[in-house]
Amino acid sequence: MTNTKHEFSSEAEFLAAYDASAFDRPSVTADVLIFSVSNNLAENWRKSDKKSFSVLLVRRDDYPEIGKWNLPGGFVGIKETALDAAHRILRSETGAVGDIYLEQLYTFDDVNRDPRTRVFSIAHMALINKNNLHYSGARDAKWFDIELADGKLLLTSDDLTLTDKDLAFDHAKIIKTGIERLRNKIEYTDIVFDMMPREFTLGELQQVYEIILGRKLIPAAFRRTIANKVVSTGKMRTGSGHRPSVLFKKHR
Amino acid sequence: MTNTKHEFSSEAEFLAAYDASAFDRPSVTADVLIFSVSNNLAENWRKSDKKSFSVLLVRRDDYPEIGKWNLPGGFVGIKETALDAAHRILRSETGAVGDIYLEQLYTFDDVNRDPRTRVFSIAHMALINKNNLHYSGARDAKWFDIELADGKLLLTSDDLTLTDKDLAFDHAKIIKTGIERLRNKIEYTDIVFDMMPREFTLGELQQVYEIILGRKLIPAAFRRTIANKVVSTGKMRTGSGHRPSVLFKKHR
Repeated sequence: MTNTKHEFSSEAEFLAAYDASAFDRPSVTADVLIFSVSNNLAENWRKSDKKSFSVLLVRRDDYPEIGKWNLPGGFVGIKETALDAAHRILRSETGAVGDIYLEQLYTFDDVNRDPRTRVFSIAHMALINKNNLHYSGARDAKWFDIELADGKLLLTSDDLTLTDKDLAFDHAKIIKTGIERLRNKIEYTDIVFDMMPREFTLGELQQVYEIILGRKLIPAAFRRTIANKVVSTGKMRTGSGHRPSVLFKKHR
Repeated sequence: MTNTKHEFSSEAEFLAAYDASAFDRPSVTADVLIFSVSNNLAENWRKSDKKSFSVLLVRRDDYPEIGKWNLPGGFVGIKETALDAAHRILRSETGAVGDIYLEQLYTFDDVNRDPRTRVFSIAHMALINKNNLHYSGARDAKWFDIELADGKLLLTSDDLTLTDKDLAFDHAKIIKTGIERLRNKIEYTDIVFDMMPREFTLGELQQVYEIILGRKLIPAAFRRTIANKVVSTGKMRTGSGHRPSVLFKKHR
C-alpha cells in the first residue's frame, strides 16, 4: 500500500511510487446533446413557416439498455479530454461532419445511473440548424421534435414517439437539463443569433424564441426584451403573402 | 476480455460478466470554491465600509505539490456523489460547519493537470459572507482577497501574497473560471441578494457589484441595470456621517 502521508523525501519519489489502482476508480463518459432549431421541410420544393425544436438521438444496438434511445455518448480515453471525446463520438455515432461548437453542460453522477459500474457523464451541448448539418455514411441517428410539459418529455419523429422511459440511463434528465440551460441562455446571451440569417424580421426572431421556450410570447413584451440586442437595417421585407416588415440585424 | 458486442443473450448476463477493469480508468476529485463578499473588520469593535471579495484556500501538507496553496478538494468516493464529496471535503479540510449552498461550476480535465494519474476535477462553487461562516476546530485554511488583472490572479491575506504559480495543479484556472461565472451570474440571477441584508441602499448594492466585478460602475447606469430587481421600502437610512438614502429590498 502506497500513497500514505509523508513517507517520501521528494515529489519525484512520491510520484514514482504512486499507485492509482490502490483506490476504487470510476469510469467517465462524454454525452452529446445536439439541439436544432430549423424550418421543417413541409414539401420537397419549399420550406414551410413551421419551425421545429429537436434533439439528435441514436438507438442503442448493444447492452446495456439495448434497443433504447440515447444521446450519442461513449467512454473518454485515458489520454483524451472529454471535449475531444464528445467530438469523436458525435462523428462516429451519428456520422455528422463539420465544426460544431460544443460547450460543457454539466457532469451527471448519480451513483446508480449506469448498471455496469460507477460512471460520471460529462454532458456537452450545441445549438445548430439541422438543415446545415452534413453527414458522411448512414448511421442509426434520428432527430426528434421536443415537447416538454409538466416535467415530462414527448419526443416525436416521423414514425416514433418516445417518453422519458424510452430513453436509456438518465438521458431524459440530461435532455431536460439541457433544455433548461438553453432557455436561460437565450435570455442572457446571443446564442439565438447563431440560428438566424444575417437579416431577419422581429416576427421571425420571436418564432425562434417561442419554439425554444415552448410557449407563445406577447409581441410588445418580446420587443422590449430584445430591444438592446437588435438594430434596424432600414430595409423592408416585402415577400408575397406577408405585409411588409422591417429587417433587423444583431446589435454590434 | 469481456464487454464485446452481442456476446450475451440478456442484459443480466451482460452485466454479470462486465469487467470495468478491462479499460484504463481515471480518478475523479471534487474541488470547492468558496467566494465571500464581506465587510472587513477594520478594527475590533466596528465594521469598516471597505468590502472584500475573497476565496478560501488551504495549504497542501502532503505530496504532490506539497507546500502550495489550493482549493479544498479530494477524491470522490466510489459510492458518493461529487456534491456530497464537496460538502464532506469542505468540512474536513477547512472545519467549516453549517449549510452552504454549493453548485457545480465545471469539470476540469486537461490530460496532464495532475502529476499522479488522470484526474477529472468536478469544481463546485458558493458565494457566502465569510463573517457568517462558523468553524469547528483549527485548520490550515485562509481567506485571500482577490484581484484579477490582465488574466493574472493576485491573492492576498494578512501575511501572504500569492500569484498563479503559487497555486497547485490548475487551481488558478479553476478560480478564474469561478470568478468569470460569478460575474456573469450577478447580471442575470438574484445571487447577489444572498449577500445583502433585507434592506439596503442602492449605494451598498453597487459596492457589492463593484467588488465582484473588480471595477467601478457609473451610478446612473448601475441603477438602470438593477431597476427591475429592487423595490423601494419607502424608508430612509439616516446614519451618522452619511446623507439620508432610500432603503430598497429585493423585488418579489
